[in-house]
Amino acid sequence: MEKWRAADRLLKFSSRFASGTKLTCTIINYDHTHPLVSECCFFPIPFYCCKSKQGKYFYSVATTVHRNPLFSIISPDDISYFKTLLGERGVVQDALALDAANTDWMGKYRGSSKLLLQPKNTEEVSQILKYCNSRCLAVVPQGGNTGLVGGSVPVFDEVIINVGLMRNILSFDKVSGVLVCEAGCILENLISFLDDEGFIMPLDLGAKGSCQIGGNVSTNAGGLRLLRYGSLHGSVLGLEAVLANGTVLDMLGTLRKDNTGYDLKHLFIGSEGSLGIVTKVSILTPPKLSSVNIAFLACEDYTSCQKLLLEAKKKLGGILSAFEFLDSDAMSLVLKHLDGVRNPLPPSIHNFYILIETTGSNETFDKENLEAFLLHSVESGLVANGVLAQDINQASSFWHIREGLPEALMKAGAVYKYDLSLPLEKMYDLVEEMRVQIGPAAKVVAYGHLGDGNLHLNISAPAYDDNILAKIEPFVYEWTSKNRGSISAEHGLGLMKAAKIHYSKSPETVRLMIDFDYCVFELLPDTSCLDDNHSIICLCLSA
Amino acid sequence: MEKWRAADRLLKFSSRFASGTKLTCTIINYDHTHPLVSECCFFPIPFYCCKSKQGKYFYSVATTVHRNPLFSIISPDDISYFKTLLGERGVVQDALALDAANTDWMGKYRGSSKLLLQPKNTEEVSQILKYCNSRCLAVVPQGGNTGLVGGSVPVFDEVIINVGLMRNILSFDKVSGVLVCEAGCILENLISFLDDEGFIMPLDLGAKGSCQIGGNVSTNAGGLRLLRYGSLHGSVLGLEAVLANGTVLDMLGTLRKDNTGYDLKHLFIGSEGSLGIVTKVSILTPPKLSSVNIAFLACEDYTSCQKLLLEAKKKLGGILSAFEFLDSDAMSLVLKHLDGVRNPLPPSIHNFYILIETTGSNETFDKENLEAFLLHSVESGLVANGVLAQDINQASSFWHIREGLPEALMKAGAVYKYDLSLPLEKMYDLVEEMRVQIGPAAKVVAYGHLGDGNLHLNISAPAYDDNILAKIEPFVYEWTSKNRGSISAEHGLGLMKAAKIHYSKSPETVRLMIDFDYCVFELLPDTSCLDDNHSIICLCLSA
Repeated sequence: MEKWRAADRLLKFSSRFASGTKLTCTIINYDHTHPLVSECCFFPIPFYCCKSKQGKYFYSVATTVHRNPLFSIISPDDISYFKTLLGERGVVQDALALDAANTDWMGKYRGSSKLLLQPKNTEEVSQILKYCNSRCLAVVPQGGNTGLVGGSVPVFDEVIINVGLMRNILSFDKVSGVLVCEAGCILENLISFLDDEGFIMPLDLGAKGSCQIGGNVSTNAGGLRLLRYGSLHGSVLGLEAVLANGTVLDMLGTLRKDNTGYDLKHLFIGSEGSLGIVTKVSILTPPKLSSVNIAFLACEDYTSCQKLLLEAKKKLGGILSAFEFLDSDAMSLVLKHLDGVRNPLPPSIHNFYILIETTGSNETFDKENLEAFLLHSVESGLVANGVLAQDINQASSFWHIREGLPEALMKAGAVYKYDLSLPLEKMYDLVEEMRVQIGPAAKVVAYGHLGDGNLHLNISAPAYDDNILAKIEPFVYEWTSKNRGSISAEHGLGLMKAAKIHYSKSPETVRLMIDFDYCVFELLPDTSCLDDNHSIICLCLSA
Repeated sequence: MEKWRAADRLLKFSSRFASGTKLTCTIINYDHTHPLVSECCFFPIPFYCCKSKQGKYFYSVATTVHRNPLFSIISPDDISYFKTLLGERGVVQDALALDAANTDWMGKYRGSSKLLLQPKNTEEVSQILKYCNSRCLAVVPQGGNTGLVGGSVPVFDEVIINVGLMRNILSFDKVSGVLVCEAGCILENLISFLDDEGFIMPLDLGAKGSCQIGGNVSTNAGGLRLLRYGSLHGSVLGLEAVLANGTVLDMLGTLRKDNTGYDLKHLFIGSEGSLGIVTKVSILTPPKLSSVNIAFLACEDYTSCQKLLLEAKKKLGGILSAFEFLDSDAMSLVLKHLDGVRNPLPPSIHNFYILIETTGSNETFDKENLEAFLLHSVESGLVANGVLAQDINQASSFWHIREGLPEALMKAGAVYKYDLSLPLEKMYDLVEEMRVQIGPAAKVVAYGHLGDGNLHLNISAPAYDDNILAKIEPFVYEWTSKNRGSISAEHGLGLMKAAKIHYSKSPETVRLMIDFDYCVFELLPDTSCLDDNHSIICLCLSA
């Protein structure tokens, strides 16, 4: 351990000296305790690339990963210990189950873990981490494994800790709307539970059937309701988390307001599991409103989309709950690859499509309000065509177009996915410039949460191709950085973008993050084993 | 500096060893680098008590403060340096101005600073802090000085840094609603600016005419709109802050979503200036909605108030923007001490009064909706009586009752103020138990943001009296802690409650806060001068 600590410190301070130096070789993961320390290379490392199912390198050439030899290899004694702690059922070594847990949803990232642990409560999580820490065994927390940035699967042979058995709802207060539950609860189950109580989750996303609330919180998942209900930083009231040395941090408040000291829970929201494993969550849920209306519209240019958003915020301010967009390439893709989907606005393809959802408490008024808004938008020329869902089936079919896009892209072949926040007025410029940059080799498909300034930029090609990748990166990151955007709006950094943080965060801020991590480690002197880089319970799926 | 650092470390680790030990003597402020390290006493310290204007001790007996002799005394050379840096106007030594800056709004906390600095931009803030750090001069950031917990004024002779001259609005984006401004902007000026643009601040509070946005953010001010628009953790999109060694931390993003690394800005929101001085703020502002309706109601018991809140959330969910309450003692106090105020529901005094505000986009529907809700509430027996404001003057008069309470309390004599978050169903139990506890010596007056679970508990007496204080504390903190409440919902800890943090936060969490502070200090090896304990730019007033 001492050697490890010494290496940590060397790294820490060397990274400071190296600040301002240009990247020569980017290393992430094991060779550094912290993924953010990625700006300098201390010793020569053999070139190593993981291969995806498709046999292509899935990282950019500059980003390679290496197993840190300081981490131990799992021994039979370790297995015995875990079996005593968790029972036979909690210790999974079955090849099929391990294969699934080692591979991400896209089949793009693949680890080689030999051990999956399934704790049933916080105490077991604490004991697992304490033991791994003492044995210097690397761990990766995993939830629903729905992430898109290589954050939820092992890279090498880490112990996978899945909190999926921790799925109890602990309390629900009907007056305050505060739900307290264990981290392994599947989002869709929480949505169903609340539905019966007359409430909804402030969070909804395409992966709701698999993703877990602990993972949602750990990755600060965004999704479809952020426009209305804000981010998890606003709605998560409390957390319980286990630090790498096994310390249980009780921050499980259920109060809407609490100004007593630093609000540390926010550090765990979106830190992708690198500071600890979230085990319980307390979240403020809004009452379910009875009246939901959905419109599907077409605009001929991006300027109209922006103006429509502004108008919608003004005219539908109180009830607007979603403002999603897709471009014509996205619509064509869905129509081609998803069974049973039809364009609600036939026959021609328009340049842009907008899905607007309102949620309120008065069916008659809300519908009239939305109809008046649509009429006015058509008359003023902002909207070329539009239709209001007449029943729940039609409403679902509208949402299916938007939510089916990730699946359609997977069916279309290889896909390079980028999840960007950009100033609204610049957002579509990137899409157009990317089309010029890529040429005819691949299709550039754009959709996303326009109301939140969040673009999902997808480059769809017949197969993965390094020449295409070289045209996308670093162009997409540089463009985003130049326009003060974020290279990860809601997906997180994961393995894919850990080394790219400098495109979105200032050097002083990154240095503070590194120091913070050391702060946590200093609290826990024997704790450098947590696999920082990709230890993400569950990433939010491109929603 | 080395000696200082060594003392820091001793303190840090000793505090760990002392965890679990019972408080014997509570020290806050200078004798410890960090206010949170308040659980043990390392060396004998002469007893010292500050006296308020009224000549009474304003801290509880166990809480005393001492000037740390390691801090330097301001010299003529220091004054010369600051005059060169800021010009004559930026260096205030005038007795009258210093007296105002040394005294808090309630006249309860009083420092003896000899120097008030007024930087005009971030660079000057940075230079001031860098210099103070190198000279080991203690500083206290101050904004509108409207705080209620002794956080915004010096305790001894700290240099006061007031960012009130940094009051430029830097940008406003009408599509996204993102406002970027300097920290010294007065909240009311921002509200006026946005009003012209068709937007509102997500934050409103009684002190808006004086308090500054940097202070609001630093103290995570709550106020009147939290029910609708959530806390500043949700609406602040970015910050610029200057750390104690002068490092400028650019976290001034304007994006709604950004998941790239730890979201460090949240540490500055509510850290009461102890980690750095906020110099710029980027905030998401909602569109102004045209229709505002206000009702003033009476309930006969607290259970009805709770049920009414639940009903309001369900029936007015989309448009509910405030749900405030006051009890009969609060109403009597306002009627007695504020000129021109009358009870909208005469002639008798009811047990509880509720102010409900809705904000929506359709005047006709919203009014009908609120009327129907009121009618139903009266019919079901939840509401004893009620009135809907017929014009803006009547609406203002309703709000004046609620907002005028702090002023009425000040006029009534001495007041002990407590700002608590409590589980809704328990909230009023505390008020009733406190009445039994205090007896006839003082009046217990309760009001607050019922919709947020935030009680403002006030004990109003003819004069400050240690016997009364002894009946209130630690009873009020113990009761709150026992019921998993927060001893500071929105006012912050300040000098008043820094040593009380353990009532609301677990030992592990407090220890992490301490370690985090050291992390920041380790980033800045020469930085222990920042006056951690009470360095709050501007506390939110009891709104």
